[in-house]
Amino acid sequence: MNDAELVSKAMERALALAERGRGRVEPNPMVGAVLLRDGDIVAEGYHEKCGEAHAEVNALADAKAKGIDPRGLTMCVTLEPCSHHGKTPPCAEALIDAGIGRVVIAMQDPYHEVAGRGIAMLRDAGIEVEVGIKEAEAQRLNEAFIKRVTNGLPWVIVKWAQTLDGKTATATGHSQWISNEASRDRVHQIRGRMDAVMVGVGTAITDNPSLTARPADTSHVLRTARRLVVDRSGRLPADAKMLLDNGPPVTVLKGDLREELKQLAGEGVTNILVEGGATLVGAMLQANLVDQLLVFTAPKLVGDAAALPAVQGLVCETMDDALELSLIDVERLGDDVLLDYRVNLPNNM
Amino acid sequence: MNDAELVSKAMERALALAERGRGRVEPNPMVGAVLLRDGDIVAEGYHEKCGEAHAEVNALADAKAKGIDPRGLTMCVTLEPCSHHGKTPPCAEALIDAGIGRVVIAMQDPYHEVAGRGIAMLRDAGIEVEVGIKEAEAQRLNEAFIKRVTNGLPWVIVKWAQTLDGKTATATGHSQWISNEASRDRVHQIRGRMDAVMVGVGTAITDNPSLTARPADTSHVLRTARRLVVDRSGRLPADAKMLLDNGPPVTVLKGDLREELKQLAGEGVTNILVEGGATLVGAMLQANLVDQLLVFTAPKLVGDAAALPAVQGLVCETMDDALELSLIDVERLGDDVLLDYRVNLPNNM
Repeated sequence: MNDAELVSKAMERALALAERGRGRVEPNPMVGAVLLRDGDIVAEGYHEKCGEAHAEVNALADAKAKGIDPRGLTMCVTLEPCSHHGKTPPCAEALIDAGIGRVVIAMQDPYHEVAGRGIAMLRDAGIEVEVGIKEAEAQRLNEAFIKRVTNGLPWVIVKWAQTLDGKTATATGHSQWISNEASRDRVHQIRGRMDAVMVGVGTAITDNPSLTARPADTSHVLRTARRLVVDRSGRLPADAKMLLDNGPPVTVLKGDLREELKQLAGEGVTNILVEGGATLVGAMLQANLVDQLLVFTAPKLVGDAAALPAVQGLVCETMDDALELSLIDVERLGDDVLLDYRVNLPNNM
Repeated sequence: MNDAELVSKAMERALALAERGRGRVEPNPMVGAVLLRDGDIVAEGYHEKCGEAHAEVNALADAKAKGIDPRGLTMCVTLEPCSHHGKTPPCAEALIDAGIGRVVIAMQDPYHEVAGRGIAMLRDAGIEVEVGIKEAEAQRLNEAFIKRVTNGLPWVIVKWAQTLDGKTATATGHSQWISNEASRDRVHQIRGRMDAVMVGVGTAITDNPSLTARPADTSHVLRTARRLVVDRSGRLPADAKMLLDNGPPVTVLKGDLREELKQLAGEGVTNILVEGGATLVGAMLQANLVDQLLVFTAPKLVGDAAALPAVQGLVCETMDDALELSLIDVERLGDDVLLDYRVNLPNNM
């Protein structure tokens, strides 16, 4: 392999390491770093938890523990090393102090306190810097972080379970259960790495959900999601389960949703999972507030026009008006299929 | 590998060979055969075209061409060798004459003229016979043939293209296009191996389709599907495209659909592709006439309750009433997803 291939391979490893921080590092970005000597990975690290050491520092510590002299070596890191004193000292400084010879970076940090300053610090110290290796993958990894620091809005994931014909309940409102146990467990795992879980008041009344993360394997619960109910009409009953269960805090959103989401982002909310209903989802899609759809499709046909849809309230005269999505991933969960889409918004990323 | 593993591996190869006959051999079953010497495949064959030699005879001819003496060897064949004089002499006889020592069979032939008689002929001649190796795979391969010879009905595949939320057209009836070019080309490929393509008269009027197979690569057109329109009310216009295009014959079905399907099966129709509309599909599902669903799901959201569904007319009060399907396969075609289901009918297979 030539240098470009070695560096690309090393960056893939760094991205895989970074991914391990998902659910633990937010509101920070996930970051991974590997140290290369003659093309071989000799040390590695990743940002493991918010408030703890960054990836580059962990990789340097790993090198030290292994008795490896980092001077003159190449470090591959999935995000520009930070230049500012946050909860930890700047990583760019640590790399300079360690005598690193070359830094390969997947993407510049969009966070306004870094935004190229880390790269400049490294170059000013005479370190060779390359930027843009596996950039698309790095952007995908931190799409939620990028959204928040760029647009000041949280990354909004809408999730629903539907029959093959797109129904989320029968005409009588019956919906338990559409998806299988593996799919329902997956939802609990996803809740376990969210900052917030949201429903509309209609769903809060109809389903009376607790919205807590209860996966079969509780090690999937990495953080505690606060609970959000969109209720402009003040209909949430005082005896709603989530108000009485001593679970995570419940916030009732009564105002302009975009402004309220901005405020949540300001409070460090990176990811929100919206679990319905159809009116809220339609309104959020129309307001360009949705980034991702996770749709569990069950092997069932309702075949009744009066049954309930996952989304309503969009305007679509011809197929050209339909909201275009991008399919990112397809996963089989038994006979259910989990489809992962991005919503093609202008200025989405 | 021990004998069981070698035989199982050989049967997988025979099944793959059999598959090559799809679209060419109907109304016969697809069959593949391999000859084993000391566990190695030394000759192979499959039923290539209706009216031509069967798999076993082709495998024996392959052995002869390679100068291999078949006496005492093992033949693995995906379907019981035939015992009757059809368009070709009985294969069981050919195997006996060739001095084959052992025959491994995936499944017994359900066709009433064979139905165990081939196995009996082989055993009577002192040949060791094993039945049931890779039986489920062999049944899946020939599910359409099995349906026809067992129930006297064709294998009915319902195909539709829908948005993520299960819509096949907007409220105004606009539907071109929902799925992408790769999906639409796939439909033409599928038509190219059907005995018949069917629509309801509503679809015939609205879409005025030709229903012919026009894939980008015409080598996918393996047979010519006749065209069927379900039109009890006599509404098919005299100037419908399919009546004037000098294409394959058009049959208008006006009576009891089950009886008409039986008659088609009697005429050698093994596979029918139903391309809508929602009323016909709903009626056929309710009458237990559907075996398979091929659903292309496009990355689009309509989000309008008045938009048109793929299936209507089923009764579904609670989710327990929903029609249960079995997911067989998921395939990505660009950002479209092709879902392949079987309908769980009693006595379906």
